[in-house]
Amino acid sequence: MSKPKTAITPTREENYPEWYQQVVRAADLAETSPVRGCMVIKPWGYSLWENMQRVLDGMFKATGHKNAYFPLFIPLSFLEKEAAHVEGFAKECAVVTHHRLVADPSGKRGLIPDPEALLEEPLVVRPTSETIIGAMFAKWVQSYRDLPLLINQWANVVRWEMRTRLFLRTTEFLWQEGHTVHATAPEAVDETMRMLDVYADFAENYMAMPVIKGEKTAGERFPGAVNTYCIEAMMQDRKALQAGTSHFLGQNFSKASEIKYLSAEGSLEYAWTTSWGVSTRLIGAMVMTHSDDDGLILPPRLAPAHVVIMPVTFKADDPGAVMNYCQKLADDLRGAPYHGRRVEVEIDTRDMRGGDKVWSWIKNGVPIRVEIGPRDMAADSVFMGRRDKDHKDKAAMKRAEFVSNITSILDEMQNNLHARTKSFRDQNTKNIDSKDEFYDFFTPKSKDHEQPEIHGGFALSHFCGDPAIEAKVKDDLGVTVRCIPLPGQVGNPGSSEPGKCIITGKASPQRVVWAKSY
Amino acid sequence: MSKPKTAITPTREENYPEWYQQVVRAADLAETSPVRGCMVIKPWGYSLWENMQRVLDGMFKATGHKNAYFPLFIPLSFLEKEAAHVEGFAKECAVVTHHRLVADPSGKRGLIPDPEALLEEPLVVRPTSETIIGAMFAKWVQSYRDLPLLINQWANVVRWEMRTRLFLRTTEFLWQEGHTVHATAPEAVDETMRMLDVYADFAENYMAMPVIKGEKTAGERFPGAVNTYCIEAMMQDRKALQAGTSHFLGQNFSKASEIKYLSAEGSLEYAWTTSWGVSTRLIGAMVMTHSDDDGLILPPRLAPAHVVIMPVTFKADDPGAVMNYCQKLADDLRGAPYHGRRVEVEIDTRDMRGGDKVWSWIKNGVPIRVEIGPRDMAADSVFMGRRDKDHKDKAAMKRAEFVSNITSILDEMQNNLHARTKSFRDQNTKNIDSKDEFYDFFTPKSKDHEQPEIHGGFALSHFCGDPAIEAKVKDDLGVTVRCIPLPGQVGNPGSSEPGKCIITGKASPQRVVWAKSY
Repeated sequence: MSKPKTAITPTREENYPEWYQQVVRAADLAETSPVRGCMVIKPWGYSLWENMQRVLDGMFKATGHKNAYFPLFIPLSFLEKEAAHVEGFAKECAVVTHHRLVADPSGKRGLIPDPEALLEEPLVVRPTSETIIGAMFAKWVQSYRDLPLLINQWANVVRWEMRTRLFLRTTEFLWQEGHTVHATAPEAVDETMRMLDVYADFAENYMAMPVIKGEKTAGERFPGAVNTYCIEAMMQDRKALQAGTSHFLGQNFSKASEIKYLSAEGSLEYAWTTSWGVSTRLIGAMVMTHSDDDGLILPPRLAPAHVVIMPVTFKADDPGAVMNYCQKLADDLRGAPYHGRRVEVEIDTRDMRGGDKVWSWIKNGVPIRVEIGPRDMAADSVFMGRRDKDHKDKAAMKRAEFVSNITSILDEMQNNLHARTKSFRDQNTKNIDSKDEFYDFFTPKSKDHEQPEIHGGFALSHFCGDPAIEAKVKDDLGVTVRCIPLPGQVGNPGSSEPGKCIITGKASPQRVVWAKSY
Repeated sequence: MSKPKTAITPTREENYPEWYQQVVRAADLAETSPVRGCMVIKPWGYSLWENMQRVLDGMFKATGHKNAYFPLFIPLSFLEKEAAHVEGFAKECAVVTHHRLVADPSGKRGLIPDPEALLEEPLVVRPTSETIIGAMFAKWVQSYRDLPLLINQWANVVRWEMRTRLFLRTTEFLWQEGHTVHATAPEAVDETMRMLDVYADFAENYMAMPVIKGEKTAGERFPGAVNTYCIEAMMQDRKALQAGTSHFLGQNFSKASEIKYLSAEGSLEYAWTTSWGVSTRLIGAMVMTHSDDDGLILPPRLAPAHVVIMPVTFKADDPGAVMNYCQKLADDLRGAPYHGRRVEVEIDTRDMRGGDKVWSWIKNGVPIRVEIGPRDMAADSVFMGRRDKDHKDKAAMKRAEFVSNITSILDEMQNNLHARTKSFRDQNTKNIDSKDEFYDFFTPKSKDHEQPEIHGGFALSHFCGDPAIEAKVKDDLGVTVRCIPLPGQVGNPGSSEPGKCIITGKASPQRVVWAKSY
């Protein structure tokens, strides 16, 4: 028997990275641009981002944060204020050096940067905004009464990347960056953890993507942070993807930017700051988590449209009557509130082959497809396909039942996606207690195929914490510590579980999550 | 009698430009940043932008547009594709020339742009996106079936400005830019006018700012456009402010970017494009239109908060009871839908002097202030002040009446603001039919005062259309043609009204709007 046809070529098994690019293209989410490393986010992809923004923005506001906007450009001297910070970002900065173009006097080129318009101090296009926001905060914060200061910014940032991939790693990307100032270290730590929880809540309950909350090791810390916390998800190739980070910055940036406050007791104190962010990378994570070999699958709570209605009529039929039926159905469905918005319905009246039309909606991940012909109309029913099931698995349902159950069907799909993703992660996560088993777990089993390297997934193993050991494992296997899981998370039962490092045999306070990663 | 105290110094009459800066500062809308020409938009100011975005975005979507996102950077060669376009923007471009920083080998500075990381082709930070979006549209548009293509982008743009003013003119600003592609010229013209109407609708009905819709003369056209249309408003110093523009680009950009489509008849045709935009400048316009010598006045439909409730208790009072009364009042008010959102209520429990507290809300423009003490509670009433009235003009109102009338009170305020602004504009707009009167109208009457130059306002005068005459008038008076009003707009009764140019005496088809401008 020949291989079954799938909408996406290659399949996940054949070539996962290429499958991902093809899913993104087939769903019309984004494409590369003529500007090196920068992507264009197309309407369907951008509406995913709008949905993410709406939900996250609501969560940020519910936790007391306000939005503001700070400059795109950072004077070089500002970036230099925090030593670890500039060290971390210097190698990937886009630098503005001129503020005018002029005709090339040599006549070789058209326009060139005007040598007369050379900036006295170069400006860096923000890779992140701690230093420029810190400079403003130093003015805004005077007294303990001004604290906490809880600010968020939605913005574009630029980090010059040599190898880019749509959504996952691009030179310019869209994100939000929270920046907060507190009077004490414990309050700043609380904020750091609160926002990590917000991210985990969003990943689990909106993206249907299970995550492990944990702390980064020193080597993976945000440049300038005291502690970096993250949420880590498993993709379908069993690699880890860091989906959000929350940093406790201690007094590093308040000292760099002179953010000081007069305490209630009258003493002048350096404040404590945090920062936290998620980006359009989340779209890539969502795509890789749920999609199949027929294309994109979207969790209903973030899908731009929930239901597509396709009128199906032939020559002898009355297209007007079918269209009216579809229109009325759409209106009834749209009446239902669904997680902060309405059920979103599209009616597809494009003039194209029915099969192509259905496949276009399968590939772009709309949760529910409904085909309506005269017979469905006569039977007062709808003919429905769900994106979380096989594309051939379609069935008729009474119209009234469909309308009254629409939100529960969507939530059932949402839950199914979460359950199957969690099950996949749990199946591919293993306690490993010996070096041999660890190395075997991460050694590809199919080197002779075209197929990309298959490896075990997440290894939960004891680690002594020595950065040299971490570097060696990375060198040997391309595997790193994704996080030190927080109590109650996968790999950390919450009660003390000390052991011995599987590499060095030295004492280890707890297991950590090891994986290959994006 | 000494001059009455006002919250803002100087007053509008004393120094209008400085008054504007002080209103923005007192309302905590924005401030200058350490980055030349770039502003920081503070939470109160940013929430104005969020409200504008929400309303405009709804209008764009209702007219069939979808949001997308395109790169921040434009390769220099792209900008050069349209001759007039690059000519218009070359002098104000921020240019990225390097993609990495490195330690200064001379040791004089810390980091410098790495000479090894010089870009082969400089990148311009987008001043507007016609050329980069055009390059994508050339791929997206193949057939007449792909048209119209209706795209909008919310983004930051950079135009290097030598003299900047918060919101009104900044090096970086936030805006939306619509970009559309059509099969025929009439369809593109229709789109251009439709979006001009959307802008006028927004200005009139949300900003409470009357505008004149018109066309720009050649000298004021967008670089690369065939026709530029605009909405023009009068500020309180009688200067004009261009609040939005909509451009019919003809085939200029489709030829520059090779945007071609296969027609239904099978021929390959260049498409017709438009672009249109409004920016954070609107915030400056709104501030200058409505505010008074006590500070910011906001039209309720865009105000971040509609009502502030201030509990007023003294030592002997029961603060808990008053607070409960305030909380219940806030909940009841929040129940009312108001133009796509809820009535937004703040309860101000800050520990500060009552007078300072009241003034802080006057200065930041909240439409309705409510003070509640034990006596108000006992009388089941509220003590209310409206921002469109004098700050001393406060009165008690029965609680139930206040709650049930809140949205009509807000709309009455909205209408009052519009009416008084329109009345001011109409009073300062005059048909002028002689050169002498025209020159007199625009000649400052108070040169000997510290007071800024007072002039007439808008002159509706005949103009032969000669750019040399326009230049001469600009040179003499600092006055330009703000627009050629469309039929039915101020200065254009709709029926033909030919006349003679007041400068040259040559034939003129209609009056145009002359004014000093921002």
